Amino acid sequence: MAVAMGSGRVSDCVVVAKVPDGPLSTEHFALQTEEVPDPGPGEVLVRVQAITIGAGQRAGLQGSASYAGAPQAGVVMGGTGAGIVETSNSASISVGDIVVGRTGWRRHAVLDANEVQVADSALDPAVHLGVLGNNGLTAYFGLLDVGRPEAGETVVVSAAAGSVGHIVGQIAKAQDCRVVGVAGSDEKCALLVDEIGFDVAINRHSPDFRAEFRAATPDRINVYFDNTGGEILGSALFRMATFGRIVCCGAVSAYDTANPDPSPRGIPGLLVNNQVRMQGFIVFSYADRYDEARAQMSAWIDAGSLVPRHVTYDGLESAGRAFVDLLGGRTVGTTIVRLGD
Amino acid sequence: MAVAMGSGRVSDCVVVAKVPDGPLSTEHFALQTEEVPDPGPGEVLVRVQAITIGAGQRAGLQGSASYAGAPQAGVVMGGTGAGIVETSNSASISVGDIVVGRTGWRRHAVLDANEVQVADSALDPAVHLGVLGNNGLTAYFGLLDVGRPEAGETVVVSAAAGSVGHIVGQIAKAQDCRVVGVAGSDEKCALLVDEIGFDVAINRHSPDFRAEFRAATPDRINVYFDNTGGEILGSALFRMATFGRIVCCGAVSAYDTANPDPSPRGIPGLLVNNQVRMQGFIVFSYADRYDEARAQMSAWIDAGSLVPRHVTYDGLESAGRAFVDLLGGRTVGTTIVRLGD
Repeated sequence: MAVAMGSGRVSDCVVVAKVPDGPLSTEHFALQTEEVPDPGPGEVLVRVQAITIGAGQRAGLQGSASYAGAPQAGVVMGGTGAGIVETSNSASISVGDIVVGRTGWRRHAVLDANEVQVADSALDPAVHLGVLGNNGLTAYFGLLDVGRPEAGETVVVSAAAGSVGHIVGQIAKAQDCRVVGVAGSDEKCALLVDEIGFDVAINRHSPDFRAEFRAATPDRINVYFDNTGGEILGSALFRMATFGRIVCCGAVSAYDTANPDPSPRGIPGLLVNNQVRMQGFIVFSYADRYDEARAQMSAWIDAGSLVPRHVTYDGLESAGRAFVDLLGGRTVGTTIVRLGD
Repeated sequence: MAVAMGSGRVSDCVVVAKVPDGPLSTEHFALQTEEVPDPGPGEVLVRVQAITIGAGQRAGLQGSASYAGAPQAGVVMGGTGAGIVETSNSASISVGDIVVGRTGWRRHAVLDANEVQVADSALDPAVHLGVLGNNGLTAYFGLLDVGRPEAGETVVVSAAAGSVGHIVGQIAKAQDCRVVGVAGSDEKCALLVDEIGFDVAINRHSPDFRAEFRAATPDRINVYFDNTGGEILGSALFRMATFGRIVCCGAVSAYDTANPDPSPRGIPGLLVNNQVRMQGFIVFSYADRYDEARAQMSAWIDAGSLVPRHVTYDGLESAGRAFVDLLGGRTVGTTIVRLGD
């Protein structure tokens, strides 16, 4: 079989310039060009219109391998994007379709048609990449399937203004829970309460954090949705109600530093005493239920009970800055980098 | 209403002489006499024939309160015993019945008839207090309801020669699992494999413990039944299979020391990466299913697939020594102190 040769066309991409060993900076990324290969049998060529960046991707740049894979310098950054199909060698996908897939940080991506999803072209790509993408699905399955909140219970969410957290809070409100958010600034806390519907929000940098956390959880915590690990997890462990559930979604406190917080105290004693369940999950394990989740979240969006938020950056060259801003806690909602039409 | 006065009869008991702040010794206990009260309405007077001692009781003597309650010097040691009813002011219990209840470490106990269970008088009290008592029930619900092992999976048990552990291992074998025990001496390890049916047993004091632990779990760990916390929990966390379950039953490594092991590393990252569930439980939450568990375990005992073990001490004055031996890892199976007929 002849190997398909590239057309010679080149296109933009962002590579990992070096693997970080401390806080991420824009210098860890470099805008380059790459040759665009011709799509092979069963593949499609996609002109990427937008990518999303999640804090979990930082785990993929750690010195030790994580669920996001081992780190490598010189390769195109991985990640999820949405775009329009320019060429299709698949019967199931047409030129002009909008698809979502693992494009990486590049303007043109060749993907296996079986590994992309055709999306509603009437919606902004930010919706596909945010609330109906991995972030929203993570919030949905993590809260409802792992956390299993019941009406009247107290749900606490860390990184509450983040892409996952702000959706978790709204889904929890839709379950008639009392919802407490932990976020990284007073501005974010005000926004969580005033605009997103959290009952209370606490600034994790407050000098009185622990006292405020206790005061915000007078009936203790039934479900703690943990996006951070570290100190906030440590505080939550001491506030769990009997039969409480801790949803281990991510450990952003440990991603962007060479000196992560130590493991929380009281493991396993606090889990025994309060009969707490602490459970890690990865959204990809729920792939066969994505349709159910998207249908439910679309219904909530239509009803106005779920209002997804995103922050937008323009141009592939801004992707590194977007990632640094995200990890630095300077964003609210899902981070979207728009690459053009 | 007149307060019932004691008859003036005195009987033996063991009190906490002082609350330990380091390893337990027999000096923390004192044999005394106490006046035996007359049983009130709805109460029974029991001549205690045997008591059992569990490692979890050590938590009740910690400086901080645990599920076993806050520590106190000068009070009679709590605990479970079995004995014969001498006086009954309850229609549901007859003189001569054998009952099991929270007698504490005493020869004569007055108990609420609603809080004792009438037991089969044909069986040795050691059976009621061991495999059909809290230890066996803890093993049963912890393994089957929290751990949920499936045939062919690998189950690892710490404190495997202990009152709970040796039953967990046998129930796991009855589920067609591969069973690995961790115990505190080569003698115990040999006994676990040769006589109790474990597939492999590892001495936690071995200088090559971590390498032996890895070698014993080539397919990683599906269910880790944790009686110890500390270093063994830390090792297990790094060996969990995807969707593995950690049953948090106790933390004996933290009970009998002023300097417990630090919390294990990798929380919550390892739980997320491997989608592990880590869950604490207390057997009393399963009270409405005790009959089911006892029926199943009795059937296994009759079939010869469950062979409970116990170690016996004679006389209430030996109870302190029995507790110290238990915590020092010098016993196999359930610790029983026989007080006489």
